Amino acid sequence: MDPRPVGVFDSGVGGLTVLHECLVTMPNEDFVYLGDHARLPYGPRPLAEVREFSREIGSFLERQDVKLIVVACNTATSAALPQLQEELRVPVIGVITPEAHAAVQATRNRRIGLLATQGTVESGRYASLVRALDAGVAFHPVACPRLVPLIESDDPYGEETESAVREYAAPLKEARVDTVILGCTHYPLIRPILQRVFGRDVTLVFSAEETAREVAETLARKGIEHDRDRDGAYRFLTTGDQAAFREMGRRFLQLPIADVEHVALKELTAA
Amino acid sequence: MDPRPVGVFDSGVGGLTVLHECLVTMPNEDFVYLGDHARLPYGPRPLAEVREFSREIGSFLERQDVKLIVVACNTATSAALPQLQEELRVPVIGVITPEAHAAVQATRNRRIGLLATQGTVESGRYASLVRALDAGVAFHPVACPRLVPLIESDDPYGEETESAVREYAAPLKEARVDTVILGCTHYPLIRPILQRVFGRDVTLVFSAEETAREVAETLARKGIEHDRDRDGAYRFLTTGDQAAFREMGRRFLQLPIADVEHVALKELTAA
Repeated sequence: MDPRPVGVFDSGVGGLTVLHECLVTMPNEDFVYLGDHARLPYGPRPLAEVREFSREIGSFLERQDVKLIVVACNTATSAALPQLQEELRVPVIGVITPEAHAAVQATRNRRIGLLATQGTVESGRYASLVRALDAGVAFHPVACPRLVPLIESDDPYGEETESAVREYAAPLKEARVDTVILGCTHYPLIRPILQRVFGRDVTLVFSAEETAREVAETLARKGIEHDRDRDGAYRFLTTGDQAAFREMGRRFLQLPIADVEHVALKELTAA
Repeated sequence: MDPRPVGVFDSGVGGLTVLHECLVTMPNEDFVYLGDHARLPYGPRPLAEVREFSREIGSFLERQDVKLIVVACNTATSAALPQLQEELRVPVIGVITPEAHAAVQATRNRRIGLLATQGTVESGRYASLVRALDAGVAFHPVACPRLVPLIESDDPYGEETESAVREYAAPLKEARVDTVILGCTHYPLIRPILQRVFGRDVTLVFSAEETAREVAETLARKGIEHDRDRDGAYRFLTTGDQAAFREMGRRFLQLPIADVEHVALKELTAA
C-alpha cells in the first residue's frame, strides 16, 4: 500500500485524456496533473529543449512526492523518456510504448496503421517500436495536421472533422490494416467518428487507454497501489492561465475540474 | 440484403445516444431519426396519449419505407411497444428489454441496481422484466430526478453532476449490487463520472449500447442487413425547432449533424 499520488504531465490539455482513463480505471488513486501551458506547444521546439523542460517537471513532481510519473505527451516522451527513467528514482511511464505493444498484440493480418501529428510521425518512434516487437509487421504511418486544431475548435464533431478523418483513413483502408494506433492524446475526443469511419473490423488502439492500463499494471506489480476501497482525489497545476486550462480541460477530462493552481516557471527550475 | 433505412424515434434528443451507438457499430446502414420535439416531454403525459403519439410516428416511419423501427425512448417503450409490434409490419425494438437482459447475464452476485428517471422507476418495467428473466435477482431501483437537467445544462461534467451521482449511487453501493442498469438514454453522456463513482468492480449496462446491439443482431438474423462495404447515411426529422435540435443534438450524437428537416404534426397524423 502506498498513499502517494501519481504525477501526470503534458505541455497542455491533451494529456487530460490519459488522466481521464486513469481516473476512471483507478478511482481509488490520487493524481496530480501538471500542464506546462506557459511553454506550449512542445512540438515545434528543439528536442534538447523539450528534454530540459521534461527533466524540470519530472524533478518538480518528484519533489511533490509522487510514486510514479506519467509522461502524457508524445513529444516529451520522444524527447526525454530514457533520461527521465535514468535520472528519477520513481518509475516513469510514457505514451508510445503501451499502444505500440497493444497494436502488435491485436493485429491479425500484421498490417498496422498510425494516425498522429506530423512531429510524431517524423520522429519514427512508433515505427521502430512496432518493428522491434514484430519485424514482420507492415507499418503505415499517416500525419494528420488538421485534427488537433479541429478537435480544439468549437465544433469537434462536425462535418469538417469527419471529412478530414475520411481523408487520413483512406490510405490505411487501401493498405487493408486491421489495427490503427491513434497516436495523439487529443484523438479520444473524436472516437465515435474514428470508429464509424474505420468500421467494426478495425481495432482502434488509443494511447490514453493503453497508458492508463500500463500505469494500473505497474502499480499492481510493484505493490504500490493505494487502498482499494477509498475515493481518490486529483488536482491540477498549470504554468499558464488557470481559467483557460479549466475551460478547455473540461472537454478533455469529462470529469469535474475544481481548483487549478498556478505554478511559476521558476518553481520548476528551482531544483 | 435490404437497402432500406432503419427508423429511430424519441420525444427529443435523448434517443440520439441510441442512434450514436447504431451509427458506430453499423456504419454500413442508413438511418432516419425522428424527434418529436413539438410534443416533448413525453414523461408527464398520460400513457394513452404517448401510445397514440408513438403509433402515429410508427406509421409515419413505415410510410418512409424503413425496415425496422427503434423506439429510443423509455416512456414510449413503456407506453406503446406491444401495440406497435402488433400493428406494424416491420420489426419494432424498444429500450428496456435489451439492457434488462444484459444485466441479468452480467451479474455474478444477482444484485442489480437501476438508475433512471422517476417515471421509468415508477412504471416498474425494469423490475418486472428482470424478475421474469431471473426470479432470484435482488433489484434496487433509484429515481434520479436531477440527472437529466444537469446533463442538458452548460456544465454536464461539473461537480454538481458528480455529487448527484454519488448521492444516487450510495444506496446501490450499500446494497452491494455488482451490476447497474443506466435506464435513461441521457446517461451515456456522463459515463466517465458514473464509471469513476461505481469503480471497476461494478458492470454498467447502458440502454443505448444494448439496444444498438439488439438492432444489429436482429438485422443479421433476419438477413436484412445492407451491403457490408458501403458508407451508410443518416438524416434527421423533427416536429419542432430545427436549430435547437442541431445545437443540443451535437452533444448527444458526437457525429456530424447536417440537415435537420421539419415535419409538421399533421404529416404524422395524415395516415
